[in-house]
Amino acid sequence: MADILFFDSISTELDLVESGLTRHINSNVSLINEAAAHLIKAGGKRMRPAFVLLAAKYFKEDIIDAIPLAEALELIHAATLVHDDLIDNSDLRRGAATVRSKWGNRTSIYTGNYIFAHALTLLEGYDRTDMISILADTSMKICDGEINQMLSCYNTDLGLKNYLRRIERKTALLISVSCQLGAMVSNAEEEYVRVLKEYGYYLGMAFQITDDILDLVADEKTLGKPTGSDIRQGVITLPAIYALHHDPRREELKRLLGSPESCINDAERIIDIIIDSDGVDYASYAADHFAARAQKKARALPPSPLRQTFIDLADFLSVREY
Amino acid sequence: MADILFFDSISTELDLVESGLTRHINSNVSLINEAAAHLIKAGGKRMRPAFVLLAAKYFKEDIIDAIPLAEALELIHAATLVHDDLIDNSDLRRGAATVRSKWGNRTSIYTGNYIFAHALTLLEGYDRTDMISILADTSMKICDGEINQMLSCYNTDLGLKNYLRRIERKTALLISVSCQLGAMVSNAEEEYVRVLKEYGYYLGMAFQITDDILDLVADEKTLGKPTGSDIRQGVITLPAIYALHHDPRREELKRLLGSPESCINDAERIIDIIIDSDGVDYASYAADHFAARAQKKARALPPSPLRQTFIDLADFLSVREY
Repeated sequence: MADILFFDSISTELDLVESGLTRHINSNVSLINEAAAHLIKAGGKRMRPAFVLLAAKYFKEDIIDAIPLAEALELIHAATLVHDDLIDNSDLRRGAATVRSKWGNRTSIYTGNYIFAHALTLLEGYDRTDMISILADTSMKICDGEINQMLSCYNTDLGLKNYLRRIERKTALLISVSCQLGAMVSNAEEEYVRVLKEYGYYLGMAFQITDDILDLVADEKTLGKPTGSDIRQGVITLPAIYALHHDPRREELKRLLGSPESCINDAERIIDIIIDSDGVDYASYAADHFAARAQKKARALPPSPLRQTFIDLADFLSVREY
Repeated sequence: MADILFFDSISTELDLVESGLTRHINSNVSLINEAAAHLIKAGGKRMRPAFVLLAAKYFKEDIIDAIPLAEALELIHAATLVHDDLIDNSDLRRGAATVRSKWGNRTSIYTGNYIFAHALTLLEGYDRTDMISILADTSMKICDGEINQMLSCYNTDLGLKNYLRRIERKTALLISVSCQLGAMVSNAEEEYVRVLKEYGYYLGMAFQITDDILDLVADEKTLGKPTGSDIRQGVITLPAIYALHHDPRREELKRLLGSPESCINDAERIIDIIIDSDGVDYASYAADHFAARAQKKARALPPSPLRQTFIDLADFLSVREY
């Protein structure tokens, strides 16, 4: 994501974050350094650091002091991914081997724990316990969401509310906090800190719904993992929920999605039903709805050339290529 | 541990910690609450909270404000245990079923993460990022130690230095930090904060060496897990290191301890060789050595009726019943 025009104003700082991310992992145990470096280099869009920096830039020209915060947010995100890959038994993430598949379960757990603790040490210089509290509270909610997603697998009775709560915790909260803390670190007025927090929340919801659509419709090359990974793991996302309520074949779909074996063996049949059902259109409409709410928040920010960037980003991240 | 006379002076506060530990775990996901409550209720000696409170009491009569800190230290300890049990595939801890055996791997990971993040939120009220930094730094080192222990399994070439580093990170650092932060929260002079930090370190070393001896010589009822659990997992502790260097049967022992199969199938033979070798006496001597260093530190504290408690505790925790 770092190379597109949205990030022109923060490209220097994003580069510093990028080089700092691995340089700062400096354990005495080389296996931790290797596994962490692998995880971090495997990439990702650095979306959370970008939002930290953009939010900080909105209120202050010199945002060099937002860099450790931006790094911390990416590391917290990476720590959750390494544990998720372990739990999902995933071999690939963004086209690269996962830490789990390369080094096994034990290394994954401790690398995740190490990276999380390391992220906390990056916040030391701010001397702001309020920021640490926000991150700790968010981390607890992310765990809630992860357990909730695990408990919701193969459960075809859960509806929209459960789904929204899951993606809130899985994605929206950390993006929201990235925007919030970025504004805080530039000493934005409380009102605007809240506006950006809400912006990040709505944008995160839109982004995750779009991600869930892509999991059904994009090819393996675009995704960096097999199409239909959610289905195969029994994770029931918005397009499936729509189909479970509105498709004539909903009884068949319910039976298939309710069985771990069918989710693996009949994944293609499941995807066909969902796509035929207009579930993707419905989810796309929901993503637009959240993106529009994010844009409304962005418009409540004080005038700045960056305001349009925030507005455009909501469109960009909720539509994407599919 | 809470019922013995060492803790008379802090018994009210220890009770408050005990009741606070589970009351404060309040996730929206009932499975997290259940798993965390099970883990915490399964008990343990509350050694880290006791040291936080004793260290705080040394410098201030009213230590009510040390209670969240004491809870946080126990929760960080619990978070490491739940991940360790997962990694060791342990079914029992202190005689109770582990979270892993009751709820599985996924719940163990997220419960550990949740409890750790929750511990951080307990520190919010102190508004002291220095305390959070110390804990984050210690957590990273604990991960180092855990990975290092994993890499050292079945490796009979590693000696005393590797062992001491492992137990430092596994046990001594968190006890050291408990003493250090307890003193800090009562605004002790920097010199005494350092003395107590060092006291906790030496005591923690003595304590873990004794724990490693008990694993070989105590019965399952005393341990709450099978005798020889370390051996069965290929964890080579001080008595074994001694035997590997000094016993006439060291070649046989090397072969047995180097093989995961033998560690399980020939655990009794391995234990017999180690005990015959005087490895237990040697380790016991090492524990005494660290306990004496802890006591020397305690004697450097300013005069107080509590000084003797710190001195006696070093004896008590390094000798214990075996």
